Amino acid sequence: DFKSALDEVKPAFGAAINTLEMCRLNGMLNCGERHAHIQRTVMTFVEQVRKSERTPLLTCLLEGPGGSGKTALAATIGIESGFPFIKIVSAENMIGLQESTKCGMITKVFEDAYKSPLSIIILDDIERLLEFVDIGPRFSNVILQTILVLLKRSPPKGRKLLVIGTSSLVRVLESMSLLDAFNVHLNVPQLKPADMKQVLKELNVFNPADIDNAVTALDEEIPIKRLLMLIEMAAQGGDEGANVYKGDHKIELAHFFEIVGDHIVFRN
Amino acid sequence: DFKSALDEVKPAFGAAINTLEMCRLNGMLNCGERHAHIQRTVMTFVEQVRKSERTPLLTCLLEGPGGSGKTALAATIGIESGFPFIKIVSAENMIGLQESTKCGMITKVFEDAYKSPLSIIILDDIERLLEFVDIGPRFSNVILQTILVLLKRSPPKGRKLLVIGTSSLVRVLESMSLLDAFNVHLNVPQLKPADMKQVLKELNVFNPADIDNAVTALDEEIPIKRLLMLIEMAAQGGDEGANVYKGDHKIELAHFFEIVGDHIVFRN
Amino acid sequence: DFKSALDEVKPAFGAAINTLEMCRLNGMLNCGERHAHIQRTVMTFVEQVRKSERTPLLTCLLEGPGGSGKTALAATIGIESGFPFIKIVSAENMIGLQESTKCGMITKVFEDAYKSPLSIIILDDIERLLEFVDIGPRFSNVILQTILVLLKRSPPKGRKLLVIGTSSLVRVLESMSLLDAFNVHLNVPQLKPADMKQVLKELNVFNPADIDNAVTALDEEIPIKRLLMLIEMAAQGGDEGANVYKGDHKIELAHFFEIVGDHIVFRN
Amino acid sequence: DFKSALDEVKPAFGAAINTLEMCRLNGMLNCGERHAHIQRTVMTFVEQVRKSERTPLLTCLLEGPGGSGKTALAATIGIESGFPFIKIVSAENMIGLQESTKCGMITKVFEDAYKSPLSIIILDDIERLLEFVDIGPRFSNVILQTILVLLKRSPPKGRKLLVIGTSSLVRVLESMSLLDAFNVHLNVPQLKPADMKQVLKELNVFNPADIDNAVTALDEEIPIKRLLMLIEMAAQGGDEGANVYKGDHKIELAHFFEIVGDHIVFRN
Amino acid sequence: DFKSALDEVKPAFGAAINTLEMCRLNGMLNCGERHAHIQRTVMTFVEQVRKSERTPLLTCLLEGPGGSGKTALAATIGIESGFPFIKIVSAENMIGLQESTKCGMITKVFEDAYKSPLSIIILDDIERLLEFVDIGPRFSNVILQTILVLLKRSPPKGRKLLVIGTSSLVRVLESMSLLDAFNVHLNVPQLKPADMKQVLKELNVFNPADIDNAVTALDEEIPIKRLLMLIEMAAQGGDEGANVYKGDHKIELAHFFEIVGDHIVFRN
Amino acid sequence: DFKSALDEVKPAFGAAINTLEMCRLNGMLNCGERHAHIQRTVMTFVEQVRKSERTPLLTCLLEGPGGSGKTALAATIGIESGFPFIKIVSAENMIGLQESTKCGMITKVFEDAYKSPLSIIILDDIERLLEFVDIGPRFSNVILQTILVLLKRSPPKGRKLLVIGTSSLVRVLESMSLLDAFNVHLNVPQLKPADMKQVLKELNVFNPADIDNAVTALDEEIPIKRLLMLIEMAAQGGDEGANVYKGDHKIELAHFFEIVGDHIVFRN
Ligand SMILES: Nc1ncnc2c1ncn2[C@@H]1O[C@H](COP(=O)(O)OP(=O)(O)OP(=O)(O)O)[C@@H](O)[C@H]1O
Ligand SMILES: Nc1ncnc2c1ncn2[C@@H]1O[C@H](COP(=O)(O)OP(=O)(O)OP(=O)(O)O)[C@@H](O)[C@H]1O
Ligand SMILES: Nc1ncnc2c1ncn2[C@@H]1O[C@H](COP(=O)(O)OP(=O)(O)OP(=O)(O)O)[C@@H](O)[C@H]1O
Ligand SMILES: Nc1ncnc2c1ncn2[C@@H]1O[C@H](COP(=O)(O)OP(=O)(O)OP(=O)(O)O)[C@@H](O)[C@H]1O
Ligand SMILES: Nc1ncnc2c1ncn2[C@@H]1O[C@H](COP(=O)(O)OP(=O)(O)OP(=O)(O)O)[C@@H](O)[C@H]1O
Ligand SMILES: Nc1ncnc2c1ncn2[C@@H]1O[C@H](COP(=O)(O)OP(=O)(O)OP(=O)(O)O)[C@@H](O)[C@H]1O
Ligand SMILES: [Mg+2]
Ligand SMILES: [Mg+2]
Ligand SMILES: [Mg+2]
Ligand SMILES: [Mg+2]
Ligand SMILES: [Mg+2]
Ligand SMILES: [Mg+2]
Repeated sequence: DFKSALDEVKPAFGAAINTLEMCRLNGMLNCGERHAHIQRTVMTFVEQVRKSERTPLLTCLLEGPGGSGKTALAATIGIESGFPFIKIVSAENMIGLQESTKCGMITKVFEDAYKSPLSIIILDDIERLLEFVDIGPRFSNVILQTILVLLKRSPPKGRKLLVIGTSSLVRVLESMSLLDAFNVHLNVPQLKPADMKQVLKELNVFNPADIDNAVTALDEEIPIKRLLMLIEMAAQGGDEGANVYKGDHKIELAHFFEIVGDHIVFRN
Repeated sequence: DFKSALDEVKPAFGAAINTLEMCRLNGMLNCGERHAHIQRTVMTFVEQVRKSERTPLLTCLLEGPGGSGKTALAATIGIESGFPFIKIVSAENMIGLQESTKCGMITKVFEDAYKSPLSIIILDDIERLLEFVDIGPRFSNVILQTILVLLKRSPPKGRKLLVIGTSSLVRVLESMSLLDAFNVHLNVPQLKPADMKQVLKELNVFNPADIDNAVTALDEEIPIKRLLMLIEMAAQGGDEGANVYKGDHKIELAHFFEIVGDHIVFRN
Repeated sequence: DFKSALDEVKPAFGAAINTLEMCRLNGMLNCGERHAHIQRTVMTFVEQVRKSERTPLLTCLLEGPGGSGKTALAATIGIESGFPFIKIVSAENMIGLQESTKCGMITKVFEDAYKSPLSIIILDDIERLLEFVDIGPRFSNVILQTILVLLKRSPPKGRKLLVIGTSSLVRVLESMSLLDAFNVHLNVPQLKPADMKQVLKELNVFNPADIDNAVTALDEEIPIKRLLMLIEMAAQGGDEGANVYKGDHKIELAHFFEIVGDHIVFRN
Repeated sequence: DFKSALDEVKPAFGAAINTLEMCRLNGMLNCGERHAHIQRTVMTFVEQVRKSERTPLLTCLLEGPGGSGKTALAATIGIESGFPFIKIVSAENMIGLQESTKCGMITKVFEDAYKSPLSIIILDDIERLLEFVDIGPRFSNVILQTILVLLKRSPPKGRKLLVIGTSSLVRVLESMSLLDAFNVHLNVPQLKPADMKQVLKELNVFNPADIDNAVTALDEEIPIKRLLMLIEMAAQGGDEGANVYKGDHKIELAHFFEIVGDHIVFRN
Repeated sequence: DFKSALDEVKPAFGAAINTLEMCRLNGMLNCGERHAHIQRTVMTFVEQVRKSERTPLLTCLLEGPGGSGKTALAATIGIESGFPFIKIVSAENMIGLQESTKCGMITKVFEDAYKSPLSIIILDDIERLLEFVDIGPRFSNVILQTILVLLKRSPPKGRKLLVIGTSSLVRVLESMSLLDAFNVHLNVPQLKPADMKQVLKELNVFNPADIDNAVTALDEEIPIKRLLMLIEMAAQGGDEGANVYKGDHKIELAHFFEIVGDHIVFRN
Repeated sequence: DFKSALDEVKPAFGAAINTLEMCRLNGMLNCGERHAHIQRTVMTFVEQVRKSERTPLLTCLLEGPGGSGKTALAATIGIESGFPFIKIVSAENMIGLQESTKCGMITKVFEDAYKSPLSIIILDDIERLLEFVDIGPRFSNVILQTILVLLKRSPPKGRKLLVIGTSSLVRVLESMSLLDAFNVHLNVPQLKPADMKQVLKELNVFNPADIDNAVTALDEEIPIKRLLMLIEMAAQGGDEGANVYKGDHKIELAHFFEIVGDHIVFRN
């Protein structure tokens, strides 16, 4: 079933974009200047790979706390690059496979990319690809060594490749020499109050006058994922949740406070 | 025997409910406001999954000390949800199977769920699914990685899934990144004196006048499981144990004190 | 040879009792009030399982120092229960077998028990079943997980089961979550001077006038096994050892002191 | 596929030189006196192996920080030696192979070399050949032992061999007894300001008047790899990046400062 | 070759005694009162097993420093017992065999013994049987568990068995619960000056007048093995070494001192 | 290929001596009194094995820093013994073989030796035979146990065996109980200034008047291997390196100092 596993990974352009779109299901919101700067920077790398003859390979790591939007960002860049080969390597397609099968699949993606003049490979959630767990710690050294070598191996003459990795465990990657294997690494942060207000304004689920107040109920920094989940829960309170997003009515501040403050429900 | 193992797991609605009923054999008693609040909260999640188009996947962990009623609670929610697909994943059905077989079974349950519009999966006693033991510590990393990925993988378009996990080892789950893989976690507590009195009143095995006194013999906090076991032992003292529950006669306070205070019988 | 191994375990009632009798070859002596209280308590559990409809499963651990009489006690309870299915699970019948074979055998015993209305299973010397050794420490996690799950799995409707475990390493069992998996645990102690006198009186191998003196030569606490071994060695001193037990003549105090005090022979 | 793997390694002189040229794609620049001295020293070893009858085997390690030019230096020496057998052993050609296959390939290279009167073997990035990772740490002891023995085994009479190793982890190699297995080891350093100016002058991408200023923006010591990457990024800023290297126009100091100072882009 | 391995172990009485004789090639010398007391004590155990009906199994460990004469002592007792089944279990006959094969061989020896009315099994150099090494530490847990169980398993009715173990690592055996698995353990010591004089007198290789002086050159305590080796080396000094033992001439004190005091030759 | 591997080890007397001569390719020089004393001592052991009837087995370890001449010394003793069976067991002939194959080969050498009346086995570089690495540490316990047993097993009647081991890691061997498994161990030291002068005089590559001066440039203690390597490098400086050893001209002191003092070339 290695064979059939590989088939799933076969580059089929339309399918690839669909997979990338799945990573940002409800669309992209403006998360503030820091997120925007990261996106612009990586787009520069896209251009460098496209144009420079001296850059056959560029590797870039997006790291930051869980739920801060790394995968959505990488997917967006892939979509906007317009490169003919774009591929996301994710543990979701490799559940239960053996280490060596996973290595074969990852290597296959790189070798497919070497056949295209311009390629982007997204190594999503590298700690999951490595089967990492902090107790021990344990991980697949076979997969690690494969990635370490692939991140430094130049594509053949005339082919160019941009690799974008994502990870929430930058310190772990560092102790594995994986951090140094990337040319560049960028930190994707949690949202600060100003960023949250931006997001809430764009979502339009509170009365504009309530937004500043709503944000005071939240921690100083939270990931975009958590902000969206809290709003979603608060949106269930009314008569018909779906209407909130359509603008039919707004989330009540008091109800939002109740949900955020419920001490038996702990965070994520 | 992987095949035959899978057959046992095949979703058959009636059978599923029977299995859930087995988790609360002697019925559910009122365990006080904290238990009730948890139950209400998780029922909100059931509604959110049923109604919201933006929540294809919601994951929630019930954690707390051994015997505090987590599995009974999860089973009750499953039964009350009325969802067409409800499945409990438990180590009891996987005794002696190999890691990879267990992974296959767990993955199969999720893939079956993806075929139903609304599903609940209960991952019961996650530390047992992971074959965890504190010496070492050791556990199955293959199973852990499978669960970590499944807890984040969205069901296909139009399918919605609520995952309820239970565990007594929340600190261990945290160090495995499993805690952060759940959207929400709730603590199911031991009973406090007021909760115990509530339970004893409902059981009606003491003279009402004795209940306050009986509770003073117990620790400040005990799990529901232990309270029920002590009553059961005390009920053996009389002529015919079964009659106590039928109300024929009551447990003698002195006899109850003797059992609770027996120093050679240690707790559980 | 898994097959043939299983055959040896097949429940054959008479054979089972014979095996239990082997655990107390030279008969049971009165070891004092503490031993008697433990025996009475476990007999109560036998009655609870027999009569209560709310106790399909009761699990009880006998723990205490090596040679304190745990196995003999468990065997005695099994014999006296009169239950139709009684089985001792012991490492002696599994020498050199593989972990998975052992798991299969242990599980088979439980599944056989589920077919009988009333059953007792003795898990003897749990650390040996687990292949435990303190260096490392190492043990079979596969067997441990099997036992952890079996200790909590309810028999099918209408079947009732009492599990009695024995172990000298209660702290180890605790760190494996095995202690909490038992409903009750009881400590089987070493003998104190009063208990030793009781035993010596019953054995009738000293002149009654010598018993108090003989006991002063011994440590404050020793297991029954060691007391019997020392007497056995002292009994070799005379013309014909066997006669001592028949009452033909008594052990000389001086000879007893010499054996107990021999500094090159260390204890067990 | 061991067989086919070996085929890839077959010594074919022209191909070998092509592989070596790949290690210094954009040509060699003057990196200052320290780099030059190392190159002269290793060329002396080349001569010693060529001429001395008492030196059938000489082994030399180039160690230094990541990106300091070790591989490019080793490749250059190989090319300039004019020896009939030159081979680079690199993890890039062994991705995903098993330890024993890798050992077979490495041993095969040495045995091929023993058939040539004069040979150079480059063991590139020894930590990668060993599948080393600092967590644990883990590595392939089978491959390590193979290399330890091969580094000390004399070629047959009349055959002479120079082994050049490269590594960024000299402390690790030391604790593996690998450092002592080499006759000589040389440190390939990062560039100091004077060296950087030399490189920038030769590249001719800044106005000569700007070079001293440009260097002040950089750390006291950086590897050649990083200097080249920063220039490459800065070269993208203008109308047409490629022209900078052709001398059409120069990098603006301000633009260079901006790139070097961008705090969200971390180093490599 | 498990089969053929077992054949070598088949009990053939004459062969067994020959093997035991090999353990004390040059005959037994009087090593002083402490050695004599141990021998007498173990002979008492031989009698107890022979006569008592209450002692089907007795297990006894001889422990002490390397070369102190444990194996020679065990062999001597075996020979002198006159029991119909005597078997030495030694790592020398199991070189390179797999753990499970070794377990099978050890178990086979016990099962053969169970067929004889009176048996002695010598488990020689238990740490070697266990493949123990202090780094790690590592050892075969499979073999350890096999021995732990066999040391406690009673022979069938009417069969009696004395097990004699030897070991130089009593602390290690203790931490493996192996020490407690023996009924008795005895310490076989190094020789003290008085013991050495006894041995030298019996050997008659010095002038009687030189013996006291010779002993002053030695450490306060040395094992019998080392004393014999030093004498053997000193015996080479003269015209014809062999004559010393035949009494033709004596070892020169000065020559003995030179050998004992040679600082480049370290001890064993 | 176990079979074919064994064939390589087959004792063929001429071949054996050739292999030993390979260990001292450029002849033996006088390394001073300490080396000479060791050689004389081990030759005494050769005589003891040859003549004494009480010494069927003698085992001796040569330990000391890397390159101090242990292997050359062992080879020389083997050659000079004139014994009919001499065999060197070295990792060089076992590259890439599996542990069990290596064990089989080592055991085969001992069993071949048991067929010869007088034998010498050299276990060269024991840490390499054991696949030892200090990280972990790791090594082959199977090979270690094999060697531990073989070092103590007596050859059959009438056969005599001298085992000479070499190692640079005496502390490691001690912690493996390997040191105590040898009857004797001798330390082969580095050269002191007086020894170096002796070697330089015999080599005749300096003007006699320069020798004292040359030695001042060196460390207080260096192994013979390093001294010879430094001279070899210095010999390359002149017009024609080979002439130095033929006495055509001498090494210039200044050139020697330059090589010894080159700070970028680190030691071995
Ligand atoms: N800019 C954005 N606008 C709207 N939604 C976003 C944005 N960025 C992320 N999200 C949403 O937030 C959630 C988390 O984002 P994403 O999965 O990219 O985070 P992550 O950093 O990759 O998380 P993890 O660490 O778990 O991999 C997703 O549902 C995603 O669709
Ligand atoms: N509300 C309740 N009313 C009556 N019985 C209950 C209630 N909650 C739990 N029980 C009973 O208490 C016992 C323990 O409950 P349960 O198994 O759900 O606890 P748990 O927290 O899952 O324990 P564990 O940590 O061992 O998995 C069961 O017998 C269950 O039927
Ligand atoms: N009450 C008793 N009367 C007479 N003999 C007894 C009694 N209890 C135990 N013995 C004997 O003492 C010895 C040790 O008892 P037993 O094996 O039951 O102890 P244990 O606690 O199970 O030991 P271990 O920790 O080694 O498993 C056995 O020979 C047994 O027959
Ligand atoms: N002297 C030089 N002139 C021009 N480019 C060089 C020079 N030395 C190295 N480079 C270039 O710098 C980059 C890094 O060099 P190289 O790969 O040799 O470094 P390294 O020390 O082997 O790195 P690593 O530690 O990652 O193996 C390569 O692109 C190489 O072509
Ligand atoms: N009483 C004795 N008289 C003469 N020789 C003896 C005596 N005891 C032991 N020896 C000899 O001393 C040597 C070491 O004895 P033995 O092998 O029994 O010691 P050990 O304690 O078993 O050593 P190890 O710890 O290495 O197993 C043997 O050669 C043996 O023949
Ligand atoms: N007495 C000597 N005269 C001349 N050359 C010698 C002498 N002793 C050793 N050598 C040479 O020195 C070098 C190192 O010697 P050898 O290999 O015996 O050392 P070693 O201690 O075994 O080293 P290692 O620890 O690496 O195994 C070899 O080239 C050997 O030929
Ligand atoms: Mg992500
Ligand atoms: Mg539960
Ligand atoms: Mg017992
Ligand atoms: Mg390199
Ligand atoms: Mg011995
Ligand atoms: Mg050597």
